[in-house]
Amino acid sequence: MESEAKWESVLGARYCRGSPLLYILSEKNKTLIWRQLWIWLAEAEKELGLTQVTEEAIIEMKNAKESIDWSELRAEERKLKHDVMAHNHVYGRLCPSAAGIIHLGATSCYVQDNADCIVIRDAVHYLLNRMAIVLSRIGDFAEKTKSEVTVGRTHYQAASLTTVGKRACIWAQDLLISFKELERFGSEQRFRGIKGATGTQDSFMTLFDGDEEKVERLDNLVTAKAGFTRRFAISGQTYTRQQDVLLVNALASFAAAAKKICMDIRVLQAMGELWEPFEESQIGSSAMPYKKNPMKSERVCSLARQLITLPQTALNTMAEQGLERTLDDSAVRRMMIAEGLLNTNAILLILQNIVEGLTVRSSNVSKHVQEEMPFLALEKALMYLCQDGVDRQKAHSIIRTTALEAKEKGNVSLEEMLSHSFYDEVRDRVFALASTPLVFAGRCVTQTDTFLANELLPSISPYLKKKDDEKVQLDV
Amino acid sequence: MESEAKWESVLGARYCRGSPLLYILSEKNKTLIWRQLWIWLAEAEKELGLTQVTEEAIIEMKNAKESIDWSELRAEERKLKHDVMAHNHVYGRLCPSAAGIIHLGATSCYVQDNADCIVIRDAVHYLLNRMAIVLSRIGDFAEKTKSEVTVGRTHYQAASLTTVGKRACIWAQDLLISFKELERFGSEQRFRGIKGATGTQDSFMTLFDGDEEKVERLDNLVTAKAGFTRRFAISGQTYTRQQDVLLVNALASFAAAAKKICMDIRVLQAMGELWEPFEESQIGSSAMPYKKNPMKSERVCSLARQLITLPQTALNTMAEQGLERTLDDSAVRRMMIAEGLLNTNAILLILQNIVEGLTVRSSNVSKHVQEEMPFLALEKALMYLCQDGVDRQKAHSIIRTTALEAKEKGNVSLEEMLSHSFYDEVRDRVFALASTPLVFAGRCVTQTDTFLANELLPSISPYLKKKDDEKVQLDV
Amino acid sequence: MESEAKWESVLGARYCRGSPLLYILSEKNKTLIWRQLWIWLAEAEKELGLTQVTEEAIIEMKNAKESIDWSELRAEERKLKHDVMAHNHVYGRLCPSAAGIIHLGATSCYVQDNADCIVIRDAVHYLLNRMAIVLSRIGDFAEKTKSEVTVGRTHYQAASLTTVGKRACIWAQDLLISFKELERFGSEQRFRGIKGATGTQDSFMTLFDGDEEKVERLDNLVTAKAGFTRRFAISGQTYTRQQDVLLVNALASFAAAAKKICMDIRVLQAMGELWEPFEESQIGSSAMPYKKNPMKSERVCSLARQLITLPQTALNTMAEQGLERTLDDSAVRRMMIAEGLLNTNAILLILQNIVEGLTVRSSNVSKHVQEEMPFLALEKALMYLCQDGVDRQKAHSIIRTTALEAKEKGNVSLEEMLSHSFYDEVRDRVFALASTPLVFAGRCVTQTDTFLANELLPSISPYLKKKDDEKVQLDV
Amino acid sequence: MESEAKWESVLGARYCRGSPLLYILSEKNKTLIWRQLWIWLAEAEKELGLTQVTEEAIIEMKNAKESIDWSELRAEERKLKHDVMAHNHVYGRLCPSAAGIIHLGATSCYVQDNADCIVIRDAVHYLLNRMAIVLSRIGDFAEKTKSEVTVGRTHYQAASLTTVGKRACIWAQDLLISFKELERFGSEQRFRGIKGATGTQDSFMTLFDGDEEKVERLDNLVTAKAGFTRRFAISGQTYTRQQDVLLVNALASFAAAAKKICMDIRVLQAMGELWEPFEESQIGSSAMPYKKNPMKSERVCSLARQLITLPQTALNTMAEQGLERTLDDSAVRRMMIAEGLLNTNAILLILQNIVEGLTVRSSNVSKHVQEEMPFLALEKALMYLCQDGVDRQKAHSIIRTTALEAKEKGNVSLEEMLSHSFYDEVRDRVFALASTPLVFAGRCVTQTDTFLANELLPSISPYLKKKDDEKVQLDV
Repeated sequence: MESEAKWESVLGARYCRGSPLLYILSEKNKTLIWRQLWIWLAEAEKELGLTQVTEEAIIEMKNAKESIDWSELRAEERKLKHDVMAHNHVYGRLCPSAAGIIHLGATSCYVQDNADCIVIRDAVHYLLNRMAIVLSRIGDFAEKTKSEVTVGRTHYQAASLTTVGKRACIWAQDLLISFKELERFGSEQRFRGIKGATGTQDSFMTLFDGDEEKVERLDNLVTAKAGFTRRFAISGQTYTRQQDVLLVNALASFAAAAKKICMDIRVLQAMGELWEPFEESQIGSSAMPYKKNPMKSERVCSLARQLITLPQTALNTMAEQGLERTLDDSAVRRMMIAEGLLNTNAILLILQNIVEGLTVRSSNVSKHVQEEMPFLALEKALMYLCQDGVDRQKAHSIIRTTALEAKEKGNVSLEEMLSHSFYDEVRDRVFALASTPLVFAGRCVTQTDTFLANELLPSISPYLKKKDDEKVQLDV
Repeated sequence: MESEAKWESVLGARYCRGSPLLYILSEKNKTLIWRQLWIWLAEAEKELGLTQVTEEAIIEMKNAKESIDWSELRAEERKLKHDVMAHNHVYGRLCPSAAGIIHLGATSCYVQDNADCIVIRDAVHYLLNRMAIVLSRIGDFAEKTKSEVTVGRTHYQAASLTTVGKRACIWAQDLLISFKELERFGSEQRFRGIKGATGTQDSFMTLFDGDEEKVERLDNLVTAKAGFTRRFAISGQTYTRQQDVLLVNALASFAAAAKKICMDIRVLQAMGELWEPFEESQIGSSAMPYKKNPMKSERVCSLARQLITLPQTALNTMAEQGLERTLDDSAVRRMMIAEGLLNTNAILLILQNIVEGLTVRSSNVSKHVQEEMPFLALEKALMYLCQDGVDRQKAHSIIRTTALEAKEKGNVSLEEMLSHSFYDEVRDRVFALASTPLVFAGRCVTQTDTFLANELLPSISPYLKKKDDEKVQLDV
Repeated sequence: MESEAKWESVLGARYCRGSPLLYILSEKNKTLIWRQLWIWLAEAEKELGLTQVTEEAIIEMKNAKESIDWSELRAEERKLKHDVMAHNHVYGRLCPSAAGIIHLGATSCYVQDNADCIVIRDAVHYLLNRMAIVLSRIGDFAEKTKSEVTVGRTHYQAASLTTVGKRACIWAQDLLISFKELERFGSEQRFRGIKGATGTQDSFMTLFDGDEEKVERLDNLVTAKAGFTRRFAISGQTYTRQQDVLLVNALASFAAAAKKICMDIRVLQAMGELWEPFEESQIGSSAMPYKKNPMKSERVCSLARQLITLPQTALNTMAEQGLERTLDDSAVRRMMIAEGLLNTNAILLILQNIVEGLTVRSSNVSKHVQEEMPFLALEKALMYLCQDGVDRQKAHSIIRTTALEAKEKGNVSLEEMLSHSFYDEVRDRVFALASTPLVFAGRCVTQTDTFLANELLPSISPYLKKKDDEKVQLDV
Repeated sequence: MESEAKWESVLGARYCRGSPLLYILSEKNKTLIWRQLWIWLAEAEKELGLTQVTEEAIIEMKNAKESIDWSELRAEERKLKHDVMAHNHVYGRLCPSAAGIIHLGATSCYVQDNADCIVIRDAVHYLLNRMAIVLSRIGDFAEKTKSEVTVGRTHYQAASLTTVGKRACIWAQDLLISFKELERFGSEQRFRGIKGATGTQDSFMTLFDGDEEKVERLDNLVTAKAGFTRRFAISGQTYTRQQDVLLVNALASFAAAAKKICMDIRVLQAMGELWEPFEESQIGSSAMPYKKNPMKSERVCSLARQLITLPQTALNTMAEQGLERTLDDSAVRRMMIAEGLLNTNAILLILQNIVEGLTVRSSNVSKHVQEEMPFLALEKALMYLCQDGVDRQKAHSIIRTTALEAKEKGNVSLEEMLSHSFYDEVRDRVFALASTPLVFAGRCVTQTDTFLANELLPSISPYLKKKDDEKVQLDV
């Protein structure tokens, strides 16, 4: 049957096409990691003196590692209703001298949880690299546009001037916070290790005749073989699902930041100030041929909306794990973790494509600055009046009246607005400024320079590599 | 590349294997419905006198309908970044005389939204049938166990007696509420119809030279061809996402009910009173061979946890649709609707399997009843004392002391408890009751009979068919 | 200590100041309803022949009903850690002849759950009335502006024309869906009634010597006295929390609709097309005196964001109620239900104030229509070309190029755009239309008329009363 | 009107009675902090040479700081619809020589956001202290019970033995993770500082005639006066709401941990192994006087369920802040932040009370251990058989059959189970162990010792003070 005749998740089929995460999160990769974990366990047990683990068994395991018969696996699981035992049996048949010692002393979570740790680590590593590239692109954009004055907007209404690049620093800072959260997750992530059925390591104590020190070494050995430096000291059957909460929180915070950025872009595109990239042959609307829609930014917002709900799943799963372990986590983690990582990947790809092709429509930007200038100049008037000792409340009140009357009337020039004698003392100073918009933008350039140099670049530069210059092309 | 080397959603790959929903929600089904919608539109336009739509074009469209070239479609979409236009172009190439009139007057949402309406309708219809079967199974179980007295539990602590079947009615009632919500969705669901790019039907007014009555008839004709009786009078570009909120709310309420039921089963299995089905070759634990775990009920709870979060996505998508339409809904609906329906399907399959094999462990049930009987008898003593005119608060207070002292001591008989002269007047009446547990269970039998006859059966019987006797087998 | 020195919820202290809901949801109202429920129970028990309930006791209960000593109540609860028993004891002291029969046969949930039913019913009734007023205001606005042509917006980009009033119908329809959900909740809400500790009615069976028919009548009698026509047939200790899910779902769907409306208003205010009311002395910004911010619409969006999360709480509470009842619901329902109702109230007040003062800035609206007219005319050209038999795809492609080139160039007239010979056959027809914007707005007027007459008014008119003409003034 | 006649949030009225947080989060504290911030601003501006700020003005401001007329404030806000300006005006009337310079150069968020930073910092500091006490109590409990062997439970079914104290370490570790998250928030929290209306610091540049260095110093001065070491380099009008996300994530993760712990306690109380404290005069049930319910643990679960939803609000608020600032955050932060902190406080109080009075019911604990011992011994048999070279899969399969047959039969002794010759080689070793349960508990004692010494105590000891020995009494 053609694969199109069966539902597929759009995360795989549309939004992450070609991503390495699809393999990292696959059944195949999981199977190989499970087998590798069994090999590491056997090796470590042998190293520590367990004679029932033979060199021959280990060699057999290594040789058979890549040989996977999917239909046999599925049949076995259908029979046993237990995926780890199914894999165990099938692998055992492939390496008969190891059959008796595969999984020796272990409980299912030895392979399940530790493999999850490895998969998550590798996926997070990949995502951090991509996130650094996106941050680097936003940094470039900010650097390029740090002096381009634009109307600031609060409440989506014109407000004191800012610059395009300074605004991009707000975006970068929000993303950077999520990047650092995810980076911290990566550096603090703990391996589950060797813990046994209820976390007491009892089966290993039996194997090693009550030698605690050997069990401790076993735990350390396997942790090191798997490439981890930290492991949990305490566990039930699984590592604590708090660790999943920390992961998902970082992803959701990223989603929130991405959604804020892309909503900003959409509003600015509606105002004609910014264009997300629109491709040569792209069609905006099937009915309205003249349309140029910010569909990429909209897609990010749409994907982010789902990702933002994941902490609910993670927190409730954590809260509902009973005693040494209930299976409350099983099915939901198979969805939550993979989909959280993939959704993050999807958003990053689109976001990178957007930022790489972001166009400032400078003529509109400066037109809007000119339109708002008289009102912005009034803000300067307020400051000067205060400097001259006029009561701030009183000044605020008169300026407010001047401004609202002008708004009502429409198209009133600065000259007209300041014609009242109340402004006599400050009028000249205000006029002098009104021709230099950048003066109205405060410390935007310095803020941008400082932020890029002191915060952004030091954080991402360890992640950037040569080939990261490639631009993202989107499939759909 | 083997499909196992690429991530697949477990909803398709594990929990809904073989479900008809996988086809209903597939790209293929969507493509066929889009083409059918184009055919219906052309037919209706022709019927209403549009001469540019020829009989030949319609015949060509019908003949080409099933011929789908997926790689051509994907290439086209990669170019246009617009899935409806990609399909439009590819279909047009298949039927050259229709190419000029496919989609005539329509906007993308004509096919997208209306196809979603059809897919959702068909999926809901399937789920209602499955839900009715599950309700029928719970009804059978309740009927069979309505007189089996068991310890009621509040706060997970022993409380006044109830019966196993009456407790099952609580489950059935909760599910029935969700069933009726979903049924109501099905019967009130509205078609989006013929609305144009911003919902004004303007393009159709142009096509029909301003003849409003013809446009109204066009809308009605296509709605009827698609098998709907209700359609929206008002829309922007899409049907209002409130309709999605109603759907997802019904599914989430079902998930909550299923989770409550399965958590009850898990607690009762922990207390040794109930067993979910455990299959011949099933393995409970890879480390602890003696284990019999309620893994099916746990899986339902796990899946339900995710489904319960979906209203967040639906509500926020509704709230964030701007003006006549933004694309905030697009990517997220592709995930939310399909996954909500599939997750519901997955839970229903497991739930049915559980209820079909649910075993009451009667010896434990009655042992627990006997252990609690002395305390329950005290509750009767409270009633008799009040009947005899003893102050209720005073009686409550003395009985509380008697009971808590006995709990502290452990293993105290009813005789001992009632030895104090305070109980002289009621002692005999209480002893008389203590041998007939069913007397302590109030109106459980009548409540069960009444509920099954008056509420459950009338609601589900229209959905039950002969073949619904088949039992569910689970794959994993 | 001044009350400002202690945290108060802003729902009470700011956003619902003066609302009748504050009393309906108060401790005092709850206390009076509990006592009334005890009176109704005593009356009904007496009517059905329970001789221990005397006329004197009932009279005492009625006389003492309004006399509440709060500090005594708090001290009693501190001692007992059980609020119903505390109230029971205190009320008993006030009416000594009733002390022995207050709460006779009942469990705490008799007063707690049934009082919640009453409070929710009264609050929902109040909210439905307010919601009807808001809908009526939007209806008035739609009627008034149904012919005012405006640029439709999809993706926040200019799209085919619509009218201001038609757009308001989209808002009204979304709200109306929530209104009908809440109305349905109100009409289908069930009373918990007389059920006993685990829902078996056992204690009442004991009181009435096993006479099932009397217990059934008791349940019916109290239900009728409380003014309900429907009650649950099946319950554990509490009514099923599915009923709370239905309530909260309706409120959250309302919040989503309100948020969509207010986000639309904010975007339109940013585009200068619409103004929410701005009061004479209102200050827009402390720093920027010229600001006119849509702060009311923003507040609605902010409040709605919280309300939208409530279904998570309701669904999880439903899912986690164990067996005949756990206390999982207690604290969270005290927050969720009150805050959900109050938040709805707060949003309704602001929304009414907004709609009552909504100003269309017609000059800007028509200016934007003129700016987009050339592009909209191209859409007509597409239709005419298709009518004349030009291939739709080909026409779409040429028009797309014409339009995007004009967008790039800026300020291109319709004449210029249609100068190419491709448009020869349709040019005149397109020019003829371009001067009559309403022609571009399709069936907006009819759609509005039909929706108001057939859907909106019939739904809300039963709720509207004379005094509902009063406008809302906001405190903060 | 009595305060009981008006709705009050139960967080203030019931669950946090007497907590210092009620003052920290009050209007009064906010007002005083706003005024203090205005004083710091004036002082710093004066220090840096702004001559319009006089010593006299600052003295007046300091003298008037504590004088608050609430009704004047409310009237002013009703007029202006702007709370900061209302406070500004009222404060200005109290100190006429300062009226003109209060808020000089600032925007509302100067006081609002910075005050929020201070309030949050103080509240977090208080909560960290309380959380450390709870952790210390759990640590004491773990130390005391680290050798008390108990049946481990996976899937709520008996599993390999563990100890009561080791299990408490699972609880402590989960809480500790949240504690460290909150601690990190506290140490990394940034002040908003001096940023102006759109974050450009433009108004201050005007005040200081374009002297960037002075503006930088002003920002640093006020930050230091407020007691912060870190401040944001980049902001729009407000500090980024990512910081709120980090706060709320830490609180929600705490709620999840608390819920897990209390659900464990409830299940263990249902099994008779653990009792939460039950007070002398406490009433379990109004209908069932013999009841001893874990109502405190249930209340924690109930409160936590609400707290767990807060990240939705925080994330969406972050995502929906538009450009330099929209008011999307205003109303919802007034609820979310205060209620998140209070709910955390409420849970901590109850949790401390629970842990302080937690009773292990040792007789039941060891009875359950004895009942499971035969099955646990089979797990040892599995290990010994593997050690002796028997194939693990084969051994697992035979033992599984032995165990499930015994479960089915009930009450089978270890002797009977091991009677088959398959066990000949290991029977004696297994019997030898079966009399020493602690041997079955693996490394529980060492794990507990290590965790307490290396992870728990070093983390909390900086927070513990003498007076922290006081026990918590609950009011309701």
